[in-house]
Amino acid sequence: MFSCKVNERTELQLIEHLHCRALFGLMDANRKHLRAWHPWVDLIRSTADMERAIVGWLQQFSRNRGFYAGIWHEGKLCGVINHLNIDWMNRSTTLSYWLDESHQGRGIMTDACRAFVAHSFNALELNRVTIECASGNVRSRAIPERLGFKFEGVMRAIEWLHDHFADHAVYGLLKADQPACDAAGARQFSLTVPRIGLYPRISAGAVNGSNRFSIESA
Amino acid sequence: MFSCKVNERTELQLIEHLHCRALFGLMDANRKHLRAWHPWVDLIRSTADMERAIVGWLQQFSRNRGFYAGIWHEGKLCGVINHLNIDWMNRSTTLSYWLDESHQGRGIMTDACRAFVAHSFNALELNRVTIECASGNVRSRAIPERLGFKFEGVMRAIEWLHDHFADHAVYGLLKADQPACDAAGARQFSLTVPRIGLYPRISAGAVNGSNRFSIESA
Amino acid sequence: MFSCKVNERTELQLIEHLHCRALFGLMDANRKHLRAWHPWVDLIRSTADMERAIVGWLQQFSRNRGFYAGIWHEGKLCGVINHLNIDWMNRSTTLSYWLDESHQGRGIMTDACRAFVAHSFNALELNRVTIECASGNVRSRAIPERLGFKFEGVMRAIEWLHDHFADHAVYGLLKADQPACDAAGARQFSLTVPRIGLYPRISAGAVNGSNRFSIESA
Amino acid sequence: MFSCKVNERTELQLIEHLHCRALFGLMDANRKHLRAWHPWVDLIRSTADMERAIVGWLQQFSRNRGFYAGIWHEGKLCGVINHLNIDWMNRSTTLSYWLDESHQGRGIMTDACRAFVAHSFNALELNRVTIECASGNVRSRAIPERLGFKFEGVMRAIEWLHDHFADHAVYGLLKADQPACDAAGARQFSLTVPRIGLYPRISAGAVNGSNRFSIESA
Amino acid sequence: MFSCKVNERTELQLIEHLHCRALFGLMDANRKHLRAWHPWVDLIRSTADMERAIVGWLQQFSRNRGFYAGIWHEGKLCGVINHLNIDWMNRSTTLSYWLDESHQGRGIMTDACRAFVAHSFNALELNRVTIECASGNVRSRAIPERLGFKFEGVMRAIEWLHDHFADHAVYGLLKADQPACDAAGARQFSLTVPRIGLYPRISAGAVNGSNRFSIESA
Amino acid sequence: MFSCKVNERTELQLIEHLHCRALFGLMDANRKHLRAWHPWVDLIRSTADMERAIVGWLQQFSRNRGFYAGIWHEGKLCGVINHLNIDWMNRSTTLSYWLDESHQGRGIMTDACRAFVAHSFNALELNRVTIECASGNVRSRAIPERLGFKFEGVMRAIEWLHDHFADHAVYGLLKADQPACDAAGARQFSLTVPRIGLYPRISAGAVNGSNRFSIESA
Repeated sequence: MFSCKVNERTELQLIEHLHCRALFGLMDANRKHLRAWHPWVDLIRSTADMERAIVGWLQQFSRNRGFYAGIWHEGKLCGVINHLNIDWMNRSTTLSYWLDESHQGRGIMTDACRAFVAHSFNALELNRVTIECASGNVRSRAIPERLGFKFEGVMRAIEWLHDHFADHAVYGLLKADQPACDAAGARQFSLTVPRIGLYPRISAGAVNGSNRFSIESA
Repeated sequence: MFSCKVNERTELQLIEHLHCRALFGLMDANRKHLRAWHPWVDLIRSTADMERAIVGWLQQFSRNRGFYAGIWHEGKLCGVINHLNIDWMNRSTTLSYWLDESHQGRGIMTDACRAFVAHSFNALELNRVTIECASGNVRSRAIPERLGFKFEGVMRAIEWLHDHFADHAVYGLLKADQPACDAAGARQFSLTVPRIGLYPRISAGAVNGSNRFSIESA
Repeated sequence: MFSCKVNERTELQLIEHLHCRALFGLMDANRKHLRAWHPWVDLIRSTADMERAIVGWLQQFSRNRGFYAGIWHEGKLCGVINHLNIDWMNRSTTLSYWLDESHQGRGIMTDACRAFVAHSFNALELNRVTIECASGNVRSRAIPERLGFKFEGVMRAIEWLHDHFADHAVYGLLKADQPACDAAGARQFSLTVPRIGLYPRISAGAVNGSNRFSIESA
Repeated sequence: MFSCKVNERTELQLIEHLHCRALFGLMDANRKHLRAWHPWVDLIRSTADMERAIVGWLQQFSRNRGFYAGIWHEGKLCGVINHLNIDWMNRSTTLSYWLDESHQGRGIMTDACRAFVAHSFNALELNRVTIECASGNVRSRAIPERLGFKFEGVMRAIEWLHDHFADHAVYGLLKADQPACDAAGARQFSLTVPRIGLYPRISAGAVNGSNRFSIESA
Repeated sequence: MFSCKVNERTELQLIEHLHCRALFGLMDANRKHLRAWHPWVDLIRSTADMERAIVGWLQQFSRNRGFYAGIWHEGKLCGVINHLNIDWMNRSTTLSYWLDESHQGRGIMTDACRAFVAHSFNALELNRVTIECASGNVRSRAIPERLGFKFEGVMRAIEWLHDHFADHAVYGLLKADQPACDAAGARQFSLTVPRIGLYPRISAGAVNGSNRFSIESA
Repeated sequence: MFSCKVNERTELQLIEHLHCRALFGLMDANRKHLRAWHPWVDLIRSTADMERAIVGWLQQFSRNRGFYAGIWHEGKLCGVINHLNIDWMNRSTTLSYWLDESHQGRGIMTDACRAFVAHSFNALELNRVTIECASGNVRSRAIPERLGFKFEGVMRAIEWLHDHFADHAVYGLLKADQPACDAAGARQFSLTVPRIGLYPRISAGAVNGSNRFSIESA
């Protein structure tokens, strides 16, 4: 029901149960294409799998750890962009995304990603956005490069892709990196929302697999 | 981040953690006014209480049982409208709402409610929408009456209001009641979304305090 | 093990695990008869389903939200009567029941229901008892009518019955409606039990699908 | 609401929320007396503590692991008798009980215990009932001795009693020990209830602190 | 990864996920032999069953209720010894164990058990260790007898063994029973560890199927 | 109780409840020293906090996601080394560690870390070990550098340290990086343990805040 306009032709909608069938259809149609870099598509084999995933994504949102948005271009669902997590303690998030094959090459994901970045810095008041791409995934790497993310290194052999370990290129963008947030993207988030509270649960040790300190919300 | 336009001046936004402080402020400013018919305001005494409530609302949404939307009028948060539950088994929902005192009398809630009704019939494909109002709450009763709901009876002494039991007037609207759903409201939901699946949990006996049969989603 | 005498020939027993096989047998024998108005019988297809239901009913009882009682007539299990929920906040409950086909027409359920009503007002100190019946279920409607419940309205198309939506007739009985509680029923509950405490969990929004305010016990 | 007649003057009632205040009052009045052998009374310091205990007891019942019954003598609550657990795998249970000081010496507990034993063998179809008493608790030991339990040994220093470790005398009664179950007690359980099913959860290792093999119900 | 030397040829290792396949192999090879006295082997039919058991054992350890150790003799896994529970309230534990058939008769289990006893008294500061053996299991009974446990009685028909009820011989050893803890065993636990704290959860009634009072850790 | 020898003077012990007081004492004595790079010490203010942390660490271990080990040097507890997580899907782990101030500069942590690395590659059969250090934490960075980890980049402003955002240097070591695993460390893990099974729970999206695909164990 709820959407966020990215530009005249593209909008984001929070993925909810209503989208289950359409989203599964899109993913299924792109299964072969996605599989090269997104091994998880092998786990989504039916609308029932998709429903369970949607429940999980909305629960992540209910815990204030980011959300999954569908991308609609000219009224057609064509991809997904999402926070993998929000690390409130360190004011940092990591983004992930995938696009229908036939919609690639038109700048749709770059625009969607710019909107997420603007929302992350302006509304969520985060300090850093990370994007990790498999080193060989040139199309995917073009997004953070186009948006001014800084290339920060390569984590070697960090992901198992069907039959080999792949390297990941890491890109980071800080609030301080961008003198003035892109106006087109920022316009959507004009509400002055106050910094939200947190209900931390002690977890002496990071929850996200790195040794940055973090606290889980209950 | 996500909104749904009701008309040129009014929009709905799914309530999320970002709204916590603003929503608590609005409720707190209307505490005296709301308390007459909404005894639950006594339980929301701080932003921490409000955050817990928001977590609960988003969890309800993740279970596919309806959502809570904030109402923005000319860019200002002025009220809430929500599903109390969605009874998928019987294709029925009950709505609830409250409005800032200074925004009353302008038809804002009637429009918001019309949008919820249209979404319930068109997107969610429900068959019935119920609205219950305390019998003495004339303003609140005017909403379903204005929207063509049928008055179906009075449940006597069904709610404890601080110091006495109040009667509830029950209003129902069926899909079949409305020849053509209001165009202005329906326009927002033009996506042809397929009927979603359900993951039922056997509960031989209704979960909603009446003896309509129902199944809980897991 | 535990029973409550309704009259010389009829008694109630709290349904527990020991009753599983007998209760499933009774329900199975009445499956066709019950199915007309009780679609949930389709979900109880084995004693294992019945055991899960009994676990759920006893958990409801452990949370202080009412119980399920078997009805024994002349030593034979012949039906069930239960609270669908107890809404402590508003001192209200809704009853439900079903009877073996061959035991109908002897006033057994009327007597059992009278005992539940007396217990609800006298022991539980509730203020209101609700009974909802499908409008066409004449036998079922006769119970509240015989016990002096007031007919309060019809909720249209509120329940899906296999292939159509059915209306529900709503009946309510207030403590104040009955000058002196029926002596035969009340005699069972002579213990002066104090009002129990509650351990509320904030749920800003009703749990029972209506907009009466309510609090869930933990 | 539900009771089980032990004899003309004594009955058992499943302990439920309605009994909270009365039961706390009784325990509180016997606090000094009970404390000598029942150190847990120090943990029940308010009706809120008692309510939590009742929730736990009813949950044990919902999992089919036995129940807690109040003992009423001439209409007055005077004690408690309960299963500590039911070990379905090994068809065995352990009983526990306590009595108001002023009601001691009249055979009330012996009769209540006889009813539990009869129910255990006849209705629950168990094979063994165990009673453990602190060695020095002469009154308590008299119960199993009077009922024909066999003294099986002393577990030394098995319980911490405020300032010292106490020994426990162990008594066991087998179904085969009693040629014909006491008629007065057995009469209450004349219903021929079929053996209930179990829903086992693998737990390779006993749950009850001994090395008898056992399976937990879910 | 972690081990505890029992003597020059034998060591204990906390059982963890790494041991799953080896432990299942050992149990499977001894299935016929173990089955006589350990009916639970019938529930461990695959490495998946074993993994679930290991998860349960480590969760028991995380709640501070004792652990499961594999016994390695000359570098070969040959058995298991474990706490069935630790009853902190009463400073008492019960041990259980089983050994590969071809390793029996060499004193391996006696040594392993002596180490557990020493750890229980010296490191855990418990006051009592219990060992229960089926009366007919002569090999198993020899362990506590060799270690100076006192025979305290026979619990009759306390365990169902495939086709009959078996008696259990109960052995207990108190800290005070052993003038000086065996040096060989005690040497492993030379660290002076302080008494740990407890986070009790009220459970008015024992958790371990006897009427010793106990408190569950959360 | 369980330990793993690192060299003649140093050993690791799985942290368990017994270590609570000693570990809190060590951390408390190093609070000022640790606080510079480990902001989580502010959350461990009592032995009760420490106990909760230990419960969490052992639960992580029970889910097969790595463990926390205390470091003992010449019989004295002097630090902690642990897996932050084990990503079985991608055969990767991240290590974390801290050392008592007075024990620094003797190579203790380098040896402990070498043992963890050897265990990760040899026993757990992982493919990659990651270590992240705050860029300015020269002592900490020396560990992976000494052990042959490859410096892979700097994640800027990734951690909030009291009053500023700190950069993290990322180091990675692959199984293929080290021609022959250090013999001294590897000797401890000579058991040929088979690859363990996994019980995956679908989580379409990584759990560790990066977009490597991962599956959570139940």
